[in-house]
Amino acid sequence: METLKVSQITKKYGRQMILDDISLTIQPGKIYGLLGRNGAGKSTLLNLIVNRILPTDGTIKLGNDEINDNDVALTQFYLMSEVSLYPKHVTLKQMWEMADLSYGSFNFNRARRLLKEFDIQDENVKLGSLSTGLQTAAKLIVALSVNANYIFLDEPILGLDANHRDVFYQELLKAYEENVKTYVLSTHLIEEIQQLVEHVFILDNEKITVDADVEDLLGEMFVISGPAMLVEEYVKDQNVLGTRSLAGIKTAFVRGALSEEKEIPDQIQIKHPDLQQAFIYLTNK
Amino acid sequence: METLKVSQITKKYGRQMILDDISLTIQPGKIYGLLGRNGAGKSTLLNLIVNRILPTDGTIKLGNDEINDNDVALTQFYLMSEVSLYPKHVTLKQMWEMADLSYGSFNFNRARRLLKEFDIQDENVKLGSLSTGLQTAAKLIVALSVNANYIFLDEPILGLDANHRDVFYQELLKAYEENVKTYVLSTHLIEEIQQLVEHVFILDNEKITVDADVEDLLGEMFVISGPAMLVEEYVKDQNVLGTRSLAGIKTAFVRGALSEEKEIPDQIQIKHPDLQQAFIYLTNK
Repeated sequence: METLKVSQITKKYGRQMILDDISLTIQPGKIYGLLGRNGAGKSTLLNLIVNRILPTDGTIKLGNDEINDNDVALTQFYLMSEVSLYPKHVTLKQMWEMADLSYGSFNFNRARRLLKEFDIQDENVKLGSLSTGLQTAAKLIVALSVNANYIFLDEPILGLDANHRDVFYQELLKAYEENVKTYVLSTHLIEEIQQLVEHVFILDNEKITVDADVEDLLGEMFVISGPAMLVEEYVKDQNVLGTRSLAGIKTAFVRGALSEEKEIPDQIQIKHPDLQQAFIYLTNK
Repeated sequence: METLKVSQITKKYGRQMILDDISLTIQPGKIYGLLGRNGAGKSTLLNLIVNRILPTDGTIKLGNDEINDNDVALTQFYLMSEVSLYPKHVTLKQMWEMADLSYGSFNFNRARRLLKEFDIQDENVKLGSLSTGLQTAAKLIVALSVNANYIFLDEPILGLDANHRDVFYQELLKAYEENVKTYVLSTHLIEEIQQLVEHVFILDNEKITVDADVEDLLGEMFVISGPAMLVEEYVKDQNVLGTRSLAGIKTAFVRGALSEEKEIPDQIQIKHPDLQQAFIYLTNK
């Protein structure tokens, strides 16, 4: 598998800037999170990568080849998105056959097993007859069984209840264990993918503002809580991203190394945030 | 405030049973979670309580009065639901005025503050012109500012990004601190409401299968993980709800007190699940 390189991509609609000079590298065989607030341009970026839309400027290469004049590259990419490209009357089995025709070697066995995991009775059911949650499940079944090296998942959990989200996370890990591929997940349920993703990109204000391994990112962020005066004193020379107060306890979110000389008062607790907390403080206005 | 009592409620549509002999009590001044899988009947139950639909059988009382012939009771209930009861051209300010007319003493100041927290520019914007996420935000603003004693929130986070979900949770706590009311939250993001709710109901197979304080429920559930053989040996006489295996580690989910006589091998870890894990194992088929 080859490296996917997005170089200085800009996308405008009319005079509106959606993505401004974005560059990033996606290494084969890793699981990535693509995070951003509503309207940040995540779907636009994914649609550019799979060549469904064209950039205003910039290039996207798989290995040495530009993806937009290279059909071979495109048969390696699969994008599952909110927008359904399937006609409503198509059956799940026909979806599988279409994926088999386009990409070859569709994993029909896995698809049939996943059907049961998602509590869908019959592969001959029509996509359009399913609830929102089960339509998502039907699209996930294709994404987890298709023979493409790069799988892009745009809001893969829309309408799924907690049990079916859990099925998806477990099955993604299982598929990854069996056959290492590159996955890029774009989702608002950040807390739930923290254990899945190795590296995250955060899109904010048309730019990539974070491009880091999850461990490194969280390692340099701190949640400091305790009595308000003590917390304020302790964080006063730090890069404080935000604070909150509840029931007399103040909590400050800090990015960057903490001073080693400063003594930590007993009543103060310091820990690393989870990925969702980190995201919220990095992207709040 | 008075106690809300749902007694032996049954709801059928034609021959299809939706809710089968449901009874539950909602105490004033508490925050509840109403949990269930997709299609479990949560919305039906909430619509019955606020008298938007009628039960096939059973009674719902606020204090001593049946809610379906008691307008006073109904002016104390507010249901925010996925289905919008507002015409598309209504502005946010008109929504506030409607809530003020129906319930009196609408908290306009809080509504204006929340508007900013949710990054909505203008109270004269039309509901129908907003994105899904911001339409949810607009409905939450009403639910958090309306003068009703019982607030029912059906999927209150639809389309919200992590930052706006965080705003909602913080503002719900703030509103509760300022003015203790009863809240019932029905949501699929169970992990995120664990810190908010004191008591949960779980709807499953048309019945209430769990009616418990969160602390009690999680206190009697255990996640036991370690080398497969040791875990299997340790849990063999227990009430095992489910197991999973990943990378050689087996995890078993157990409900009920653990035997105190049995020695716990060093390689085995035992902890309580979070509410979402508990829910998944209690409701998986």
